[in-house]
Amino acid sequence: MIFGVGLIGGSLARGLRERAGHDGEVIGVGRRAHSVARALELGVVDAVATFDDDAALAQALDGADLVLIAAPVAQTQMLLERIAPHLQPHTLVTDAGSTKSDVIAAARAALGARIGQFVPGHPIAGRESSGVEAALPDLYVGRNVVLCPLPENAPADVERIAQMWRATGAVIGQMSAEQHDRVFASVSHLPHVLSFALVEQILATPDAELKFSFAAGGFRDFTRIAASSPEMWRDVCLANRTALLAELDAYTEVLAKLRAAIDAGDGGALETVFARSRAARQAWQERGGKRVASDATSEATSEGASAPTPSQSGPDK
Amino acid sequence: MIFGVGLIGGSLARGLRERAGHDGEVIGVGRRAHSVARALELGVVDAVATFDDDAALAQALDGADLVLIAAPVAQTQMLLERIAPHLQPHTLVTDAGSTKSDVIAAARAALGARIGQFVPGHPIAGRESSGVEAALPDLYVGRNVVLCPLPENAPADVERIAQMWRATGAVIGQMSAEQHDRVFASVSHLPHVLSFALVEQILATPDAELKFSFAAGGFRDFTRIAASSPEMWRDVCLANRTALLAELDAYTEVLAKLRAAIDAGDGGALETVFARSRAARQAWQERGGKRVASDATSEATSEGASAPTPSQSGPDK
Repeated sequence: MIFGVGLIGGSLARGLRERAGHDGEVIGVGRRAHSVARALELGVVDAVATFDDDAALAQALDGADLVLIAAPVAQTQMLLERIAPHLQPHTLVTDAGSTKSDVIAAARAALGARIGQFVPGHPIAGRESSGVEAALPDLYVGRNVVLCPLPENAPADVERIAQMWRATGAVIGQMSAEQHDRVFASVSHLPHVLSFALVEQILATPDAELKFSFAAGGFRDFTRIAASSPEMWRDVCLANRTALLAELDAYTEVLAKLRAAIDAGDGGALETVFARSRAARQAWQERGGKRVASDATSEATSEGASAPTPSQSGPDK
Repeated sequence: MIFGVGLIGGSLARGLRERAGHDGEVIGVGRRAHSVARALELGVVDAVATFDDDAALAQALDGADLVLIAAPVAQTQMLLERIAPHLQPHTLVTDAGSTKSDVIAAARAALGARIGQFVPGHPIAGRESSGVEAALPDLYVGRNVVLCPLPENAPADVERIAQMWRATGAVIGQMSAEQHDRVFASVSHLPHVLSFALVEQILATPDAELKFSFAAGGFRDFTRIAASSPEMWRDVCLANRTALLAELDAYTEVLAKLRAAIDAGDGGALETVFARSRAARQAWQERGGKRVASDATSEATSEGASAPTPSQSGPDK
């Protein structure tokens, strides 16, 4: 059963059926009747229900092996509360939320003593496009899926979730929820905020049109993520507030140092920082764009890393 | 004659010869003997000299129609001072610098009463790769070249420079040096500083390796420009200091507002900003990624705009 048949949930359904040959029934549950109808029409799922159709939920959950929650993180608790009364002891629940500490708190509140049935997860895959039409069977091939197991999870249950994702081509990593939230605040949530902020700042200036007219490849790449879902990123910012503010404050300090160097005409300081950043960025790119750590506490290795999409664009001159 | 046979100068030479059928001699002048030798070896230029070979410069400038300076902006004044003693009255000089107010000041200092022979320009084309090996005959096709004519420039001379760039496939825009520096501080220089700063900030944290391990498409796009030349961007930051600091301060204010909204849990404020940014970014993308204004003071039109490279990546989930 998949709650939220958009890009993430729809791609899992397609990946399991089209890549992994899964022949069990996949039921899609969605907020809006027309989205679930569309998922059914496209053949992504076998049957559908809406969040508020309690009878259909009860029936679907009766035989469910596995439930994925792939909805905005702010809805996690509400959805788990709807699921809880019908949750069978053999059913495992996992999620695809971009933040983990808040999702775990929501799951504990909704599931209580049955929290062991919930294995927190986060597939690192996304695109600007969203909705079930954008779902792809190969979305997860070579992508990281991070699991943040709870003390209450049975190891075999964690492995069941890992196997489901591996069947779609994903590579599994594990870390604690705190590590997860700090890592993604840094490499994902903060860049999104910074990118939204740049477009917002340009819009506030009287010559915004002229600026957009001459924006080129550097702007395009930098602001690609500013085309992301406002609702999703609002939720992520609030759900991961503590870690995000810590990263944002550290970033603002770096920026203040660079500002001081520019103001003082200190070319040496600027070049040192720029050269160090470039070296790190190039090293990251050269080792495959990302490294996959199966154990976050050990040194990461490059096994299973997928090559990044080659860029056809670059910095502006 | 092209001073600086790297990506920008080399691509002009190749564009003029391979696209426009230019059959005049192209002389490449460079800082290092081995780079100019490489340009000769690759057939990008017909003859070469180094910056410090005064006799060769004198000889080359004797019959030169046009000189392009395509070196880091901080070198502009030194190069123009070397050129000045040999500059013939019929020779036009232009440049490819990313900043214009400082270049114009340097040109006035070096050329004095002959400043009318210098037409300031800026081709908006660049890649992470640099050097003459990266030069392409088609680099400028559909790209903007901004000219910032001086009161002392004869209109026919400005048109000669415009025609040269048009022959490589470029689209010409005009604006004042002040407008130019403000626009590019905003859409190019600031994003570069912000991108370098993010990598720098991650490097300063104890879990940098873990963060890089799980960085995905959003990070990749956001930091692509952090792989740019430290020397060039040091020079740009210093050369365009005033405009860059103004944009950076305005940006920091926007960031402070977003920080306050995150801290206060004000989802409405976040969503408003994110939605406004997304709408503007999507509109920019839909009208071709950039718009080309031939007269910066009028409303820009979309004529001549080239489509951006389609993205194969997107925001992280």
